[in-house]
This record gives sequence, structure tokens and C-alpha cells, in this order.
Amino acid sequence: MERVGFIGLGTMGAAMAGHVAGAGYPLTVWNRTPGRAASLVAAGARQAETPAALAAESDVIVVCVSDSPDVEEVLFGPAGAAEGVRDGGLVVDCSTVAPSTARSAAQGLAERRVGFVDAPVSGGSEGAQKATLTIFCGGDPADVERARPVLATMGKTITHVGPVGAGQAVKAVNQVILAGTYLGVAEGIVLALKSGLDVAQVVEALGGGAAQSWVLANRSGRMIDNEYPLGFKVALHRKDLRIALTMASELGVVLPVAKLCAGIEVDLIANEHGDEDMSALARVIRGWADLPD
Amino acid sequence: MERVGFIGLGTMGAAMAGHVAGAGYPLTVWNRTPGRAASLVAAGARQAETPAALAAESDVIVVCVSDSPDVEEVLFGPAGAAEGVRDGGLVVDCSTVAPSTARSAAQGLAERRVGFVDAPVSGGSEGAQKATLTIFCGGDPADVERARPVLATMGKTITHVGPVGAGQAVKAVNQVILAGTYLGVAEGIVLALKSGLDVAQVVEALGGGAAQSWVLANRSGRMIDNEYPLGFKVALHRKDLRIALTMASELGVVLPVAKLCAGIEVDLIANEHGDEDMSALARVIRGWADLPD
Repeated sequence: MERVGFIGLGTMGAAMAGHVAGAGYPLTVWNRTPGRAASLVAAGARQAETPAALAAESDVIVVCVSDSPDVEEVLFGPAGAAEGVRDGGLVVDCSTVAPSTARSAAQGLAERRVGFVDAPVSGGSEGAQKATLTIFCGGDPADVERARPVLATMGKTITHVGPVGAGQAVKAVNQVILAGTYLGVAEGIVLALKSGLDVAQVVEALGGGAAQSWVLANRSGRMIDNEYPLGFKVALHRKDLRIALTMASELGVVLPVAKLCAGIEVDLIANEHGDEDMSALARVIRGWADLPD
Repeated sequence: MERVGFIGLGTMGAAMAGHVAGAGYPLTVWNRTPGRAASLVAAGARQAETPAALAAESDVIVVCVSDSPDVEEVLFGPAGAAEGVRDGGLVVDCSTVAPSTARSAAQGLAERRVGFVDAPVSGGSEGAQKATLTIFCGGDPADVERARPVLATMGKTITHVGPVGAGQAVKAVNQVILAGTYLGVAEGIVLALKSGLDVAQVVEALGGGAAQSWVLANRSGRMIDNEYPLGFKVALHRKDLRIALTMASELGVVLPVAKLCAGIEVDLIANEHGDEDMSALARVIRGWADLPD
């Protein structure tokens, strides 16, 4: 059985690493804040002092951190994983970063004869807890197949979507689709509230038709109640849209709804709602309609 | 069995009236262009000379026309249904019009001791053909229950959502949600196309997660192929958004995505794409990204 190293034990990473350990993989973990490793260590995981030390005792290294600079730091920074990783190792990056970050990481690791798969996940903290994440893999087929059994402990749909970077591109597409779907549902819910309708019943009636979506079924209740427990943080979706909008600029694609969504999210973050679930987009639509906050 | 009169035999109405007749209801039909009635008459329906004549020989009168002025004309215009309708009759309006139109029609008919139910439908021509429409009913409970068996021949989900006008309000909410969902999917598909991804595979991968929607599952293929067979006409969604945006203005609700969608639809209509399925919204996003038309 491959020895797995897991770098990044945030809300997502900690849950995902737990599933890897639960499946019986020998697990070493590292996190910037070492205390986050306590429960995994109590369950039998080893804790490394540095990413380099983790890499030295791992065959497959999973990374799950916040943003491009974090990925670069834990891989190529001082005492980064690239310093310790052995020939024939594999890095699987579950962070959401730019496709270009994935491609340059893959190149840096290839020079050390180490494989790379970008494997960003979708499904939020709920999906991480329940091991029902959707995972989009970019990389060489052999590397993706090697990563698959480890990823299968964390997710239920693992799709190889193309070469390195393609996983990140698909994740960006996902976040763009979410922008429109969430805003459409938020606008509809606020119109329904102000129309005096029984909105929960409306949601049920519309769920059988063309307006049906995961967001309508699973997030409209929060918009009606105006309470937004996690879920998936506004601040993370805003970060992911920054990636998507940068890609769009480079590719010459105009995304007005994604751009509007990012702008609303900037306002939410400025008003200290950045740590709420992204269904909090409805806060702003509600506010514009003078509904109580 | 109640005698049914059906006014308005467009793409939607002709299919819906066919289901009513198929269920064994004695059926009389009327359409502004009489030739549209031919196949229903061949199947045994009677054809009336005027809405008033139709009303005189019907217990339940179903209306399915394009817009508020059409509803007012066939009900209260010269030789309109209100002239012929008998005490205790019921008008069921399946058109999509403003909630205020529904309320004034109900008032005008109540003076003649005739009931009224607004029962706009969702599901497009496909839903009309297959009798799988979703129908939102506004009206007095007794009137809605009387309408229900007739509506049940045309649709699979029939929900009583409140007093007269509430059905139209729910339909408006539906169209607002569709605006965001279609635009989100269109933006995502165009970003995926320009990223060089296998877009059909992307759709499948995303369909298991938070981006899942009826639109993604059923309309993304048209956006990829850039071909938009009906479906549900751009021009009709634009008309429905006019109703929703007017409601929003009256209620003090700001709907930026619905407004953006209406603007894109105005462009599509001006460029002779108004008769295509509303997934043709992707034409404009594709065009902005210099994808071939």
C-alpha cells in the first residue's frame, strides 16, 4: 500500500486526510499550524516537521491548501516537499489554483522525476466530511490512475478530464456555473419573498421543472431563513472566481454574471460575511429589496 | 364529465388541448387562426365561431394565449368568453401574464358569478407534448380543485400556491431563476470551450456536484453544438421577464441577472434568434468570446 503524505489540514483537508487514514493508508501529515494535526495523530497518523520531511517518507503526496502562493510555498519553498520527495513520487494537488500554477508545478516536479496531478474538488465541507466530493483530475493517465485509489477514499466521482491544468480549468468552469445558479436562485427567492408567497412551497413546486438545481434544492432554505452556515465560504468562491476571471481574460471570454457575482462577494467580505456559505449572496439581493438583514 | 372549452391553439395550447380530449372530456376549441384547430376537430372536437360561443357550451374554459392583452381580448373583448359564459362556469388561464392581469380578470368574471384560476405552466413545448408540465395554480381552493382533473391531463405537478395571481407570481419567480441558471451554464460552457476541454465530459463530471441543474443536464449540449431547437422560445422568456421585472419594480426588488438576461434576449430577438430555444443565450456569450457563430 502506498504511503500517503497529506499537506494542509484546513476544514477540507482535515476531513479528506481522515478518509485516507480510515481506508488504511499509512499517513503522514503536515500543517502550517501544527495543532490541527492532533486528532489525526491520535488516530495513528505521523506528523512531519516540514513538507520536505513528509515527502521523504511518502510515495503519494496530497496537497490541500488555499491558493497558488501556498502551493508554491509547500512544494518549492524552503523545506518544501520538492526537497524531500523521492524519484518516482507523485504529488496530487487538491487545492483550487490557476491552471498555469498547476502546469508550472508539474514542470518543476518533472525535473525531479516526480509526477503531478491537479485534482481540485467540489462539494464543500459537507462533501469532504461525507467523502462525496466530486474530483476533477488533470495529468498523465498513469499518474491519474495511480492517484485514483487515494482520491476514491475522499470522493464519489473522480473524472480524468485532460492533461495537467485541465482539472483546474474544469473547477473554474464549475465556479462560473455556480455564480449564475446561486444568483438566479437568490433573485427568485427574494422576488418570491416580496410577493408574499409561501416560498418553501414555491421551491418545491419549481423543483420539478426547468428551474431545478442542486442550489435550489439545497441552498434556497438558507436564503429564505437568511442564515448561512458552511457549506462553502464566500471568500473561497471569490478567490476561485478570481482564477476563473483571469483565465477568461487570457482566453478572451466575457463573463458578466461571474463578474457581478465576484463584485457582490467583495461587498460581502468587506461586511464580514466572507466566512459564511456562498448562499449568503442572497444577503445582498435581500438588502437591495429592503428585506430585514 | 365537465365540458371543456379551449381557447388558444399555439404550440403549447394545441398539445395541451389534445391531452384534454384524449382524456375523454367533451371539447370545444377556438383559435384566432381557425386552421390550427383542424387536427383536433378531426379527432372529434367541436370548433366554435367565437370565444363567446365556445363559452356558451363549456363548463370549464381553459385559456392559453400569449400575453395580457390577448387574455383580456378573448375574455372581455367583443364576442369574448365573458359574453357567453354561464353562471357557475370556471375560467382557467394557462397563459403567462402579470399577476395584476389575473386579479382583474378574476374580478371581472366574479361579477358574472364565474370562477377564475391562474394556472401558468412551465416545461416548454416538450412538457406540453409529453403532458409533463409543471403547473402553478392561484385561486380559491374550490376552484383550483375543480380545475385540477383537467390540468392533470396536461401536467405532472400541479401545485396550488395561493390566491388568484399567486400562480403568475410563482411563474415569474421561475423565469428569474431560469435567467441565472441559463446564463451561468452558458458562461461556464463558453469558458470550457475556449479552454480546450472535452466539454461534454465536463458537463458529465459537473453534473454530480453543486453545479447540477436541469439546464446543465438538458441544455448544455445545444450550447456546445451552437444549435437551439425548441424548447422554449427566447421571445417568450423575454416577455415573461418583462412581467417579472415589472413586478420587481413595483415591489422594490433589484434583479441584476434577470435584467442582464432580458437585455441579451432583446439582442437575440433583434438578430432574428427570438424563435430559438432560450439556450440560445449562449450565442451571445459565444459571440463575445469570438467563437464561431
